[in-house]
Amino acid sequence: MRKRIVTLGEIMMRFSTPGHERFIQAGNYDAEFGGSEANVGVSLAYWQQDVSLISALPENDLGRAAMRYLRTGGIDTSYIATSEGRMGLYFLENGAMQRSSKIIYDRFDSVFSHYEGLNVDWDQVFKGVDWFHWSGITPALSGEAASLCLRVLQAAKRNGVTISGDINYRRNLWRYGITPLEIMPELIAHSQVIIAGLTDLANCMNIHETSFQKACQKAKDRCPSIQLVATTERESLSASHNRLTGHLWGKDQTIQSKTYDMPNIVDRIGGGDAFMAGLIYGLMHRNQKEALEFAVAASVLKHSVPGDANFVTVDEVDQLVRGENIGRLLR
Amino acid sequence: MRKRIVTLGEIMMRFSTPGHERFIQAGNYDAEFGGSEANVGVSLAYWQQDVSLISALPENDLGRAAMRYLRTGGIDTSYIATSEGRMGLYFLENGAMQRSSKIIYDRFDSVFSHYEGLNVDWDQVFKGVDWFHWSGITPALSGEAASLCLRVLQAAKRNGVTISGDINYRRNLWRYGITPLEIMPELIAHSQVIIAGLTDLANCMNIHETSFQKACQKAKDRCPSIQLVATTERESLSASHNRLTGHLWGKDQTIQSKTYDMPNIVDRIGGGDAFMAGLIYGLMHRNQKEALEFAVAASVLKHSVPGDANFVTVDEVDQLVRGENIGRLLR
Amino acid sequence: MRKRIVTLGEIMMRFSTPGHERFIQAGNYDAEFGGSEANVGVSLAYWQQDVSLISALPENDLGRAAMRYLRTGGIDTSYIATSEGRMGLYFLENGAMQRSSKIIYDRFDSVFSHYEGLNVDWDQVFKGVDWFHWSGITPALSGEAASLCLRVLQAAKRNGVTISGDINYRRNLWRYGITPLEIMPELIAHSQVIIAGLTDLANCMNIHETSFQKACQKAKDRCPSIQLVATTERESLSASHNRLTGHLWGKDQTIQSKTYDMPNIVDRIGGGDAFMAGLIYGLMHRNQKEALEFAVAASVLKHSVPGDANFVTVDEVDQLVRGENIGRLLR
Amino acid sequence: MRKRIVTLGEIMMRFSTPGHERFIQAGNYDAEFGGSEANVGVSLAYWQQDVSLISALPENDLGRAAMRYLRTGGIDTSYIATSEGRMGLYFLENGAMQRSSKIIYDRFDSVFSHYEGLNVDWDQVFKGVDWFHWSGITPALSGEAASLCLRVLQAAKRNGVTISGDINYRRNLWRYGITPLEIMPELIAHSQVIIAGLTDLANCMNIHETSFQKACQKAKDRCPSIQLVATTERESLSASHNRLTGHLWGKDQTIQSKTYDMPNIVDRIGGGDAFMAGLIYGLMHRNQKEALEFAVAASVLKHSVPGDANFVTVDEVDQLVRGENIGRLLR
Amino acid sequence: MRKRIVTLGEIMMRFSTPGHERFIQAGNYDAEFGGSEANVGVSLAYWQQDVSLISALPENDLGRAAMRYLRTGGIDTSYIATSEGRMGLYFLENGAMQRSSKIIYDRFDSVFSHYEGLNVDWDQVFKGVDWFHWSGITPALSGEAASLCLRVLQAAKRNGVTISGDINYRRNLWRYGITPLEIMPELIAHSQVIIAGLTDLANCMNIHETSFQKACQKAKDRCPSIQLVATTERESLSASHNRLTGHLWGKDQTIQSKTYDMPNIVDRIGGGDAFMAGLIYGLMHRNQKEALEFAVAASVLKHSVPGDANFVTVDEVDQLVRGENIGRLLR
Amino acid sequence: MRKRIVTLGEIMMRFSTPGHERFIQAGNYDAEFGGSEANVGVSLAYWQQDVSLISALPENDLGRAAMRYLRTGGIDTSYIATSEGRMGLYFLENGAMQRSSKIIYDRFDSVFSHYEGLNVDWDQVFKGVDWFHWSGITPALSGEAASLCLRVLQAAKRNGVTISGDINYRRNLWRYGITPLEIMPELIAHSQVIIAGLTDLANCMNIHETSFQKACQKAKDRCPSIQLVATTERESLSASHNRLTGHLWGKDQTIQSKTYDMPNIVDRIGGGDAFMAGLIYGLMHRNQKEALEFAVAASVLKHSVPGDANFVTVDEVDQLVRGENIGRLLR
Repeated sequence: MRKRIVTLGEIMMRFSTPGHERFIQAGNYDAEFGGSEANVGVSLAYWQQDVSLISALPENDLGRAAMRYLRTGGIDTSYIATSEGRMGLYFLENGAMQRSSKIIYDRFDSVFSHYEGLNVDWDQVFKGVDWFHWSGITPALSGEAASLCLRVLQAAKRNGVTISGDINYRRNLWRYGITPLEIMPELIAHSQVIIAGLTDLANCMNIHETSFQKACQKAKDRCPSIQLVATTERESLSASHNRLTGHLWGKDQTIQSKTYDMPNIVDRIGGGDAFMAGLIYGLMHRNQKEALEFAVAASVLKHSVPGDANFVTVDEVDQLVRGENIGRLLR
Repeated sequence: MRKRIVTLGEIMMRFSTPGHERFIQAGNYDAEFGGSEANVGVSLAYWQQDVSLISALPENDLGRAAMRYLRTGGIDTSYIATSEGRMGLYFLENGAMQRSSKIIYDRFDSVFSHYEGLNVDWDQVFKGVDWFHWSGITPALSGEAASLCLRVLQAAKRNGVTISGDINYRRNLWRYGITPLEIMPELIAHSQVIIAGLTDLANCMNIHETSFQKACQKAKDRCPSIQLVATTERESLSASHNRLTGHLWGKDQTIQSKTYDMPNIVDRIGGGDAFMAGLIYGLMHRNQKEALEFAVAASVLKHSVPGDANFVTVDEVDQLVRGENIGRLLR
Repeated sequence: MRKRIVTLGEIMMRFSTPGHERFIQAGNYDAEFGGSEANVGVSLAYWQQDVSLISALPENDLGRAAMRYLRTGGIDTSYIATSEGRMGLYFLENGAMQRSSKIIYDRFDSVFSHYEGLNVDWDQVFKGVDWFHWSGITPALSGEAASLCLRVLQAAKRNGVTISGDINYRRNLWRYGITPLEIMPELIAHSQVIIAGLTDLANCMNIHETSFQKACQKAKDRCPSIQLVATTERESLSASHNRLTGHLWGKDQTIQSKTYDMPNIVDRIGGGDAFMAGLIYGLMHRNQKEALEFAVAASVLKHSVPGDANFVTVDEVDQLVRGENIGRLLR
Repeated sequence: MRKRIVTLGEIMMRFSTPGHERFIQAGNYDAEFGGSEANVGVSLAYWQQDVSLISALPENDLGRAAMRYLRTGGIDTSYIATSEGRMGLYFLENGAMQRSSKIIYDRFDSVFSHYEGLNVDWDQVFKGVDWFHWSGITPALSGEAASLCLRVLQAAKRNGVTISGDINYRRNLWRYGITPLEIMPELIAHSQVIIAGLTDLANCMNIHETSFQKACQKAKDRCPSIQLVATTERESLSASHNRLTGHLWGKDQTIQSKTYDMPNIVDRIGGGDAFMAGLIYGLMHRNQKEALEFAVAASVLKHSVPGDANFVTVDEVDQLVRGENIGRLLR
Repeated sequence: MRKRIVTLGEIMMRFSTPGHERFIQAGNYDAEFGGSEANVGVSLAYWQQDVSLISALPENDLGRAAMRYLRTGGIDTSYIATSEGRMGLYFLENGAMQRSSKIIYDRFDSVFSHYEGLNVDWDQVFKGVDWFHWSGITPALSGEAASLCLRVLQAAKRNGVTISGDINYRRNLWRYGITPLEIMPELIAHSQVIIAGLTDLANCMNIHETSFQKACQKAKDRCPSIQLVATTERESLSASHNRLTGHLWGKDQTIQSKTYDMPNIVDRIGGGDAFMAGLIYGLMHRNQKEALEFAVAASVLKHSVPGDANFVTVDEVDQLVRGENIGRLLR
Repeated sequence: MRKRIVTLGEIMMRFSTPGHERFIQAGNYDAEFGGSEANVGVSLAYWQQDVSLISALPENDLGRAAMRYLRTGGIDTSYIATSEGRMGLYFLENGAMQRSSKIIYDRFDSVFSHYEGLNVDWDQVFKGVDWFHWSGITPALSGEAASLCLRVLQAAKRNGVTISGDINYRRNLWRYGITPLEIMPELIAHSQVIIAGLTDLANCMNIHETSFQKACQKAKDRCPSIQLVATTERESLSASHNRLTGHLWGKDQTIQSKTYDMPNIVDRIGGGDAFMAGLIYGLMHRNQKEALEFAVAASVLKHSVPGDANFVTVDEVDQLVRGENIGRLLR
């Protein structure tokens, strides 16, 4: 059954070096599009949900290409504003073995970072919507983006929409003079489901705990709207070999997923977004335990797909959860 | 020493997505040629045997390209008929990690599937031939192909040629109104060597056993021509990581090969055909135990070579059997 | 702090098949440049040292391209002679799994192999130089190259430069009528630091020992200039999976590095040169233990970088030595 | 202003050899999608019109990829049926100089060719639609396709939609036992605007004239619905160099466009569809003379864009019509 | 004979779509480096002149890659400052036929645009320098860049260096609140040689003339330092076909070069910079008439070379000037 | 009707830069095979003639790849010797516009240049052969190659085979101490058909004439075996634009072909060999006038095909001769 989902965030152009070339070696770049919340949206749309993205893009051919990318995925683009300005970019060097992958962001001063969404009737946007998803990247970009985020969250809440937030603390953002603690707690307080690890909770909610359960409890104490806190535990043996486990805290229990070994990673970018999308999908259509397993399996499969987006079907995720056909040749 | 080998089967154009891209991502495809029996032939020709392929191709540039591919490999193409019609195709998405590889066949109604070989003097073809190889794919395609297969098998038998058959049961073929059980036993009854696992024997000979040895014995009971039954046991940990063992049943003993760990698979398509080719080569030039080890090692090396064909030399296979120089840099 | 380093050796054009294609499959080749001593130089220049290469190149566009490659890396090319003639080449087939990588050399009769360096004031070249590095490949190429090597070594020694030599015995070189034992001992006797395994010492110094320590002691007995002997121990599980350990012998102690597991090798060519460069860098700027660990870690990272050269920074090597951030995504 | 346009036709996967390689040379193929009526639709959607495509695609990943391609272009895909079966394909060899481009079709027995559209309420489809476009390719494919075409044309006519038809006679289609003259006149009789040259009118309406004007008059005599007949005159100096002129016949006058010289053609496939789209756009938004000039200029620009689709904006076409900025570098 | 040349300007990363793909089609981009003054410098260095670039780059891998690109070309990079910030970028869509090439700049807020060069002893920089080259792009970027330009020009003048300026008026720059007329005349007044067409002189010197000679005379009247004014006249028949003529005004005469027909353009970006470099080279080493012919021929050859830089030798330019070997196969 | 043709010559590996990149820009190379006489053979085999190549190749994977290339084309390789040694190579930079294409040969000391063919029964080779073709490149390589050429020519003559020779004088070969005049006249004296222009006749037969007819008559005076002399006149407007005319001298008349304009050349390498192959084919199957027109048209079409070999059919050549379908899209 289709649900209506709205998400908010920047979509960037992604330039990645081919194979395992380093930045200083590359004579050409693969060009795709990505962004945390857009990745979540693309997954959900691929799983036959109705998804709209609130965003802003430049009025040039790069912006138009981004728009086409979203439409390809079946995402409704009617809430994407366009104006003169620049496209957010990021450059990816795909690591291997003991050598880390590297990202250089070049998203400062993008059209999205200046977009405030003042002329939109946000209540109208959220009529009939089942779920709204945001992440901590948006308020980290600029004052305008932070106030857009708050404005949209308030409208979603007013309209009774379920809200999830991926806290996603990134130290090298937050450069516009505000610390996360000044704004994130208010935003988080609108959300029922959050993805947050200990570092996120420390930096964005000032919760300093070494136990995930205790930290989650404290988060709920401060933001009583929170019903569920999810996180992925990633053991990074090398850039090519990770292990992944999901955890989901609820007020009654904390559950843990199967652990997946991933010794031949193709592209780990978007792995967290695939988890988020899987969790949203699972919570809308399954029970909590199934939702967590679905989320982790979706994330695992993402590591086998090049690009930001997780082009795997619900069936493929379900088969991995059940341990069926793993790696078999399907004719 | 060169032996004369004839094989029968369809050669298709193979379009595979680059790297680990999914079908829906690919903007270009690698184009090669492949087909189970042609792959066996290309291996044997690469090992300096005289190989002819009985097949049929369209009279257009794609058909001519397939013909050139075979000639490159040193395969005699004088028994390949051409006529108007279409080329059989298959599309390959190369999996990775827990994500399976996928094949979409588009071979229905190909020139080969309509070829009956009525105007050929098949006895002439088999004069002086040492070995004939066929597979269960041909009779699965169409009534015409099935009767061609039978006609050719009869001629081979009349001329005292050793015959091997790769049972190769594929559920998604057999669409022309006949079940395997109606025709495969008769075809198998012409063969001395077959490759068959439990599923193959169940579907094509109605033998339902859980023990490979018992199943083989029953197969021989029904088709006394059978001297040897071989199979590969593939443990699929992921699309990138398999383990491979070969088994060879004879009336006196069942032998088992070394088990090879394959944690960084490049291209597993054609792995079974490489085993078959290795077995034929081994049985023609070595003893049974050596033949089995040669076959498995040939198959392992195939997994490191992109494309359907197994471009590895007899020396390279022998070195792997002996455990020499594995993965060393050869200058 | 920048040191001044001079190295001597041939730089070749390297043609490698894309991905894991075999030579007989390749329709195009990646074209780069490499050569043992140049690779050492490129590493050291990448680490902000002042490096000059003594070499010779053809006066054509391929030679000019090689020159540009060196300049890109910041290597001083003023000691590179040019003349009419051919460029040394090598062809690389990148193995995978149990299939070995293969190199076909085509360096015979190159401009470098005819270069004797008669008109250069070598004492002038070595004024103010801290370190000179050579390898056993140069004297293996031709009589002219061997006498050039000796001439340069003598000048370096006269000027009090620290000298390292990578013995690097290769059976398929040494085709000009001289055996290594006729010339290598004299060349080695100019060096303080050598890289040599048991095979190298056997073939180039006639030392036949099974213990690395004893062999090193004997080497020092014959060539008292030798202060340190280093070697890497490479366990080759497959072309895709090696393990690497470094050993460093000094008169007081033999030390051993951490062992690194490398299960997803991208390109192992240049791994030994990366070790050599790391050792030189370490011995110039750190203590012996640190130098050895730096050298091995540098070599490990090289296996993740396509091409002959090791484009990793001092920071990246140091982080690997400390076990920090291994394979983490760096934003 | 947006108009609502519906078109009917097959969309195929297009495999083209890279650069100017011949079929027998190609080791990989560029993969795109195309088809005459879909190309018209993509142009019109690119020009901000609301476009729906009536078609049928296989229920596999290739069909899904075609669907995504259409959505990228902003085409509504809700009238595209899916079922088991195969995708229509075509293979393109891009000629150069005196060497012609070649197309090999492999569209027989595709899902589209079996689609009859029996369960659709076609009157519902055409509510509020401004324009319907079909081509003579559809009825040439199969009896099912021909009856689908008639059924859809009748519904369009019933609903007062303006209808255009590209006669597009192709000798190598029409293989299902019907000649064009048995069915095309009835289909044409539903249309107000047709694209047809003398060969088309001869083969599909049995009109044998050497004067375009007289032939058009006769066509109107037989099918009084016809208001306009357009055609392009293409002078083919070589595969790389064509000249193009448009002609438009109406009952009062025949007008002729500027002639464009095209000496550096990039990709001529889809040039006729670009003309058709331009004509529809022009007739909906401009006068007849302007429509013709717009159509020819759009077609000229198509020849500079790789692929079937004409990704040029209305502004770019208008500038070419005005002769502005031709070939200038736009910063 | 080598001359010492200094130039000032931004070097950007250039992303161009492959072949003739449009921005909205491209799935990968060729990545190179370019910038008007750097292009001039690369040409001159390729012609064996000593060239230094004054510029600023980000302290990240993209900046380091740009630095390596310059070193490859033999350009001295010791006057390039580095700091945190972003790299200037530009995106190129290579037109064909009647479709124009398009550039999207994304250079706002780059490290270079913030660089003021306050801590450099510019008099030291210009000791022994023969020629300084600047362009009107630098003062168009920002107030900081404009004051850097003036500061550097003053130092060059103080040290008796010959100065050339490429006026290069671009309407879409100059966004920081200053008009060209407020600053360009002062900058131009430091220069002996300028490249300027009528549009440049109108916008940057307020000279409105339709005769090039009269406009040049007026320019000299206002800025008596001007000795020579050069310009190229480009007839743009299409993006693939241009014609080029050079003009050089001096106080005694105006000379005109041969006109070159260019019907198969490969890459026209950098054509103007190639002319500028040719003019500087010619004025340093030849007479004025020869200099002009050299400049135009250099520019013509640039149109055959992909990328911003003009990799053609002095010999190749001279041969074109003499009309020798044009298009012959050179073995 | 099939004729039996033997040709003698070296086949080299050809590395060409992609697109129009210069040698110093290329990061990868297209790898193919070519050589004047092998190109002639590949054309003739493509036209269904029985062709054998006398040659020699190294016993390594590059040699094996060359062998496979020949077999792909249907060329009999049983007269190709193999031995240790190196492969002849050549590097191609594909020019454009006024910039010439460049070739760097690296064929010195190849296996072929050392092959003398002493152990072959050449009379046996020429039994039943209709035509033998050689070129002046072989005797230009080395003394061994020259004596092989003579030995083979004598055997061909003894066996009554028609002989053609492409004089093909190249100044930069002939480096082994012999001038063409010392050996070419004797070789030419075995031939009935030669391809030679005025420069060839001057350098290889010491005939200095400005009239082609007079030069041919003198050639026949000296070598009475000569019946026909052919040549192509190539007007090189640029690397992208040539014009081509063929001339054929016989004792009774000199005939001239149509002139073809070629303004969009794809790859001109092998154009002369395509002419030679066309002439041989024409003289074997048509009259002299038709043969000349066939040869020139074949050569023209070669310029549209990438690579050394001329993959165009007899039908395609005939259509161009008749002026049919030129540049039309063939469906």
